[in-house]
Amino acid sequence: MAERSVTLEKTLRALLDDKKYQTLKDILVTLEPADIAAVFSELDKERVPLLFRLLPKEAAAETFAELEPEWQELLIRGLSDKELREIINELYVDDAADLIEEMPANVVKRILSQADPQMRREINEILRFPEDSAGSIMTTEYVSLRPSMTIAEAIQRIRATGVDKETIYTCYVTQERKLIGTVSVKDMLLQADDQTPVSAIMDENVISVNTLTDQETVAQTLSKYNFIALPVVDQDGRMVGIVTFDDAIDVLVEETTEDIEKMAGMLPSEKTYLRSNAWDLFLHRIPWLALLMVSATFTGMIITGFESALAAQVVLTAFIPMLMDTGGNSGSQASVTIIRALSLGELEFSDAPKVVWKEIQTAVLCGIALAGLCFVKIMLVDRMLLGNTDISTLTAFVVCFTMAVTVLIAKLVGCTLPMAAKRIGFDPAVMASPFITTIVDALSLLVYFGIASALLF
Amino acid sequence: MAERSVTLEKTLRALLDDKKYQTLKDILVTLEPADIAAVFSELDKERVPLLFRLLPKEAAAETFAELEPEWQELLIRGLSDKELREIINELYVDDAADLIEEMPANVVKRILSQADPQMRREINEILRFPEDSAGSIMTTEYVSLRPSMTIAEAIQRIRATGVDKETIYTCYVTQERKLIGTVSVKDMLLQADDQTPVSAIMDENVISVNTLTDQETVAQTLSKYNFIALPVVDQDGRMVGIVTFDDAIDVLVEETTEDIEKMAGMLPSEKTYLRSNAWDLFLHRIPWLALLMVSATFTGMIITGFESALAAQVVLTAFIPMLMDTGGNSGSQASVTIIRALSLGELEFSDAPKVVWKEIQTAVLCGIALAGLCFVKIMLVDRMLLGNTDISTLTAFVVCFTMAVTVLIAKLVGCTLPMAAKRIGFDPAVMASPFITTIVDALSLLVYFGIASALLF
Repeated sequence: MAERSVTLEKTLRALLDDKKYQTLKDILVTLEPADIAAVFSELDKERVPLLFRLLPKEAAAETFAELEPEWQELLIRGLSDKELREIINELYVDDAADLIEEMPANVVKRILSQADPQMRREINEILRFPEDSAGSIMTTEYVSLRPSMTIAEAIQRIRATGVDKETIYTCYVTQERKLIGTVSVKDMLLQADDQTPVSAIMDENVISVNTLTDQETVAQTLSKYNFIALPVVDQDGRMVGIVTFDDAIDVLVEETTEDIEKMAGMLPSEKTYLRSNAWDLFLHRIPWLALLMVSATFTGMIITGFESALAAQVVLTAFIPMLMDTGGNSGSQASVTIIRALSLGELEFSDAPKVVWKEIQTAVLCGIALAGLCFVKIMLVDRMLLGNTDISTLTAFVVCFTMAVTVLIAKLVGCTLPMAAKRIGFDPAVMASPFITTIVDALSLLVYFGIASALLF
Repeated sequence: MAERSVTLEKTLRALLDDKKYQTLKDILVTLEPADIAAVFSELDKERVPLLFRLLPKEAAAETFAELEPEWQELLIRGLSDKELREIINELYVDDAADLIEEMPANVVKRILSQADPQMRREINEILRFPEDSAGSIMTTEYVSLRPSMTIAEAIQRIRATGVDKETIYTCYVTQERKLIGTVSVKDMLLQADDQTPVSAIMDENVISVNTLTDQETVAQTLSKYNFIALPVVDQDGRMVGIVTFDDAIDVLVEETTEDIEKMAGMLPSEKTYLRSNAWDLFLHRIPWLALLMVSATFTGMIITGFESALAAQVVLTAFIPMLMDTGGNSGSQASVTIIRALSLGELEFSDAPKVVWKEIQTAVLCGIALAGLCFVKIMLVDRMLLGNTDISTLTAFVVCFTMAVTVLIAKLVGCTLPMAAKRIGFDPAVMASPFITTIVDALSLLVYFGIASALLF
């Protein structure tokens, strides 16, 4: 896809230089809004408003919604009031609300002054919900039907009002604003008799979410039931909007990226990598790095505490990295698996006993296998191949035994911390590798020196 | 959701005990297939076939498609040939193909013998495509129209054939089996004149994927353009199927889970956590653990090489865990960010110079901040608070300088390895934290002892 944008962008630039506006129009009309937006962001800033004006009205609004905020701002500043009014009122309400949230105050003021009263009211309706709630991502543009309507009347209503709706394929049947059923266009079209009332074919077992439901739950609910759109109701069961599948996909991708960033010890970022500068990246990465570095004071203290023992048996030092890394890897395998299962809703806190027991079994298997392999490695590679005769069989035993215990500790810490975090209402994702590594490091060193002290000195 | 299933499951069990079949039917009809499937998997195995028989035909097929493979197999073994035939032929073809892939050979044979010839042909069509290709996840049940049809004729065709189609909302216009345009039900309904030919309102700029396109690309393309379904064409441009948005969401979730598993040093698993036993988990986790453990031989060798120096300055050992962990964390921040951006298509290999430059800047900022903080920490906490007077200012300087260099190395390794992997056609996700940690460990120890040797001995 990216390849295509690059090639096209050269052509467009040449055509703009030659002022071949009709040819440009002919080209633009063949492209999807997402592709036009991609081309725009490759072009020189001053050319974008010119090209944007060549788009037909509807395509212009759709392209505008696909642009990154910095390009949206650039365009708004370049458009006349009349042009801006046309774009704003053509946008879907949820896209307009997103725009308002991203723009600086003076631009927001100008946008709202150009929005027609109905649009302004609906934007404000969405903006009053907390960030990441169903209310904040929904759109108010859905088709509502009355239960007494016939299918013919319902289709007539879709025809009359559907052009501005984000989806027409699922319609919502309301009575005194309460959501009492859903009916799909498919069911209406496939019904032989168009005088059947909507109430006779509607599905009364409505799955809906509340305006305050977390957006991740919204996306998972939609995905679970394979819905094109999920209705959003207020505290009194009144229908207020819908979240469509395309927005749910965006939420899933965004939330997963956030989880992944947290698991790698970063603060989640709203910007894409290429849009972030080094300072942004620094600010998102330094807090955890600094915290974890300082907390390594404990591992330092443990080593200092056994300093005299280590001075006598320096060979023990050589195995510290291997033990620590294996502990860290074992722990992050467990924690990352549990965190992902929690965030997909596959695991609940009530599964904790099952999880702990499964991790203990796995840890025993991994521990025995690694300890065995480690023993063979030390005897064959370190002693025979590398000729490190300082390593006695007893030393090898101490290392391998520590290895097995470390794996067990790591898997236990790795599986319990995320579940405990979930239980107390924290985000399990921050309990991932870096955090667990620090704990496992300290514990495994204690085990190592404890066993070494008992057996070797 | 899980809470709800648990409560319901008790009620169903009691009603089954009392043989209240009509009440059970009344309850089941209020539930979505996904919820019925969730309830079934909580019930005792012998009760499921009984309850399943109470479902109306269409709901039975939809519920069946939502069940985990082990429950599907259980049901198939419990159903008569006639019952099985009804279920199989009611399934969407892509679900039927998924089923065939999961079942053991003797069950497959029975399923295919009950499928009607058309169904069998379409299943085989899908099964011949490579795993994870567009062809393997598509369904062949879409609405195709001829360009010369009027809208009225098109809607007539949807009414006649739509009941078996996975979606009717986007229809595909074909000529000699070639895909030449798409038209949505929305456009058809909103068009005033139903005698307009389809060719006049269809969108001729069709976005499609090839049967062999990777499923992750399919899902990303659908998400990029906000399509309800994406058409799949063969090498000659002939329309062969569609991938619907709900399957695309499943692919996105599945592929992300795979990436996360790989990033944490595990082989990706097809089973959910609760369905995997300890032996499954062991087999998926041990390969990377063993490989990384053995590769820690290098860090061991480096430490052994500087053994005499370490024996003289044992205090240096105390900082090894801190340096290694900070290196590992810095590296995994960079690698995980790059891997995610690559898998979302935000980065291409051609962005490599930009990425490297950005990571160098970020590393310098992080390195200076961490080195400064580390120096303060050593002087205040380790020397003054903990009274460790072995640590000279020069030692502190060596540690902090190594820290800054380690961060730089870690960020560079962390950003280049995933991009290099992508370039040579490897999966960038395996170049994540555990792998990079091992490399960064060795490099940072070399730097540490190198600087220490130069300045302290």
